[in-house]
Amino acid sequence: MSLAASLDDADPLGAYHAEFAQSADVTAYLDGNSLGRPLVSTAGRLAAFVDEQWGARLIRGWTEGWLDLAETIGDDLGRVALGAAPGQTTIGDSTTVLLYKLVRAAIDARPGRTELVIDRDNFPTDRYVLEGIAAERGLTLRWIAAGDVTADRVAEVVGPDTALVVLSHVAYRSGYLADVPGITAVAHAAGALVLWDLCHSVGVVPTELDAWGVDLAVGCTYKYLNGGPGSPAFAYVARSQQSLRQPIQGWLGSATPFEMGQGYEPAEGIRRFVSGTPPVIGMLPMRGMLELIERAGIDAVRAKSVALTEYAITLADELLPSAVLASPREAASRGSHITLDHDGFRAIMPGLWQQGIIPDFRTPNGIRLGMSPLSTSFAEVELGVRAIAAALS
Amino acid sequence: MSLAASLDDADPLGAYHAEFAQSADVTAYLDGNSLGRPLVSTAGRLAAFVDEQWGARLIRGWTEGWLDLAETIGDDLGRVALGAAPGQTTIGDSTTVLLYKLVRAAIDARPGRTELVIDRDNFPTDRYVLEGIAAERGLTLRWIAAGDVTADRVAEVVGPDTALVVLSHVAYRSGYLADVPGITAVAHAAGALVLWDLCHSVGVVPTELDAWGVDLAVGCTYKYLNGGPGSPAFAYVARSQQSLRQPIQGWLGSATPFEMGQGYEPAEGIRRFVSGTPPVIGMLPMRGMLELIERAGIDAVRAKSVALTEYAITLADELLPSAVLASPREAASRGSHITLDHDGFRAIMPGLWQQGIIPDFRTPNGIRLGMSPLSTSFAEVELGVRAIAAALS
Repeated sequence: MSLAASLDDADPLGAYHAEFAQSADVTAYLDGNSLGRPLVSTAGRLAAFVDEQWGARLIRGWTEGWLDLAETIGDDLGRVALGAAPGQTTIGDSTTVLLYKLVRAAIDARPGRTELVIDRDNFPTDRYVLEGIAAERGLTLRWIAAGDVTADRVAEVVGPDTALVVLSHVAYRSGYLADVPGITAVAHAAGALVLWDLCHSVGVVPTELDAWGVDLAVGCTYKYLNGGPGSPAFAYVARSQQSLRQPIQGWLGSATPFEMGQGYEPAEGIRRFVSGTPPVIGMLPMRGMLELIERAGIDAVRAKSVALTEYAITLADELLPSAVLASPREAASRGSHITLDHDGFRAIMPGLWQQGIIPDFRTPNGIRLGMSPLSTSFAEVELGVRAIAAALS
Repeated sequence: MSLAASLDDADPLGAYHAEFAQSADVTAYLDGNSLGRPLVSTAGRLAAFVDEQWGARLIRGWTEGWLDLAETIGDDLGRVALGAAPGQTTIGDSTTVLLYKLVRAAIDARPGRTELVIDRDNFPTDRYVLEGIAAERGLTLRWIAAGDVTADRVAEVVGPDTALVVLSHVAYRSGYLADVPGITAVAHAAGALVLWDLCHSVGVVPTELDAWGVDLAVGCTYKYLNGGPGSPAFAYVARSQQSLRQPIQGWLGSATPFEMGQGYEPAEGIRRFVSGTPPVIGMLPMRGMLELIERAGIDAVRAKSVALTEYAITLADELLPSAVLASPREAASRGSHITLDHDGFRAIMPGLWQQGIIPDFRTPNGIRLGMSPLSTSFAEVELGVRAIAAALS
């Protein structure tokens, strides 16, 4: 038995693979960190909603659960993966729009402070949103230079002028796993708020947002939460920050939407961060994945994630000696993907995809292997790394 | 044969009723202007996408059509219902978020102008968004008082300080149908831009956005486009206005998203109005309805809509003499719903819903009857008005 086969054999979560739809021409799917697979149950879940809810209940559905669905699923997410008590998480919009709303809200909560802190390696949307807001509000961006974002490096740039620090929990390219509680404490010591982007960690790296004193967080649901292409994002706003006001004042974030009255008054609680009508259908697929993660337990998911990335690194060391590991070797500093750099990688990508080996490419020269613990097998990792090595040689 | 039965019998679009899912306990669905019925094909369309696209193609789907889907469907919508040439319409976000983005963009395009014009009867989200932006930018809101919004009344408030006029094509409560070309010309004569909210007209009232010189428009897709609860909205930005910049700078609105580079540069064309990842699954149900409208022809849809509202008014005059018609009697000034006011209406709503008669209630005392021409029969209208009359007596 190969090492991969014995690892799969011993995997306590191996039975979950059967919960995910398989693709006939894909032998190794290593891009679950860009788009998770659908569950076998997802198509039926959507069809059942159309027939039994939308079609059968029609407009009545809004008062029979749909209107609360963003908070219902938000609370599920908070319990299963975020370490967030109910009433602090909502589903909707896109990560970009939620970033905009929460950054704007946070700035207003720190009047007189003139600086926003972000790192050069952060995901483009995070940087672009902050650049736009800084320009419109006359604020200064303080950039943390490229590289792993540690508490010490954050401490060098935050100060009495810092309104808000915006960082990613897991870096989209390197997979570096930031010290959320440590960095949050550093920012708070300077009187700043912190907004964590959890896009690349939610569902695979446990967080304790409440216990860590996180102020704000956003993330997407189409990666490790398997919500489907472009599924709505989520926002976490700690109860202590729920007096903030966001700038996109819509009727469903108002205190009394169905009064249709004059003058916007924000709702109490997390609902004030909602703007338009909640994207009900788009929210449904993630529910199945939240159920699976809860059944497996987020700590077991994390353990499998670590084992998968360890195995990928071991294989890369052995089979791809000319590639450079652009991700941390220490599991405690790593999310659920690794990136390998090699100047030959760009050229081999089309051939890999044609073979049904599906990693991701990130400029200028990185192959990113994203492992989604409940759906990715050790055998897929082995197939993938061997195929990359074969293509390169 | 009753009048309703003979009208249904002679209805050239009657065959379309069979395209829509029916609800076992609903005998008269008169709220298609809040949430359209699903098509019979919708559940299968979603399930097929999950199996054949998302599940089978996985991340490869983004380069096989998903990334362009917002513009593909936007162009379909433009052709079928908006009178918009390709490259000016995109699907995404919510109406509220798109309003925010386009209002902000328009203000920046009219520097030095200090006023925004809107009417008191406009839908809450439109008013709330403008109130928020006016406060943040130090602008003045010029209110058109409650009542039908005519070109003459707009002319009274626009002037050299007007940056933007924001109005609804069809009023959400009264159903009043505004003179888009006339009002647009009035605004333009004052040097202002115009943003039309098409939520209550798109798919039932033909528009000629290009020919009318409209600058900007938004609308939702869950009413007469049958996109499902919370389906994404659309934005139209005339080619002449595509140098505008919107404030929510996300990676998918940037010129080169997959370069992941430093510094946001907006994409050329309509794509610069995109922020985050397009809501692919949420966009799918409306495709079926766009196909039906195209097959029927938007002018035929409008003709049926007029016949349905005429019939509803005739019945109300006869059966509900104590109710007040809060909608225009002239078909040319009316969208696809009518509102009747009566102080007894609030009390009878629960009973109507229990009988499977589903109109909508709008504060303080209005019952709104929304007719969706391809799915609503004259018999449903008769059943609905007779049930209201019976409940009231």
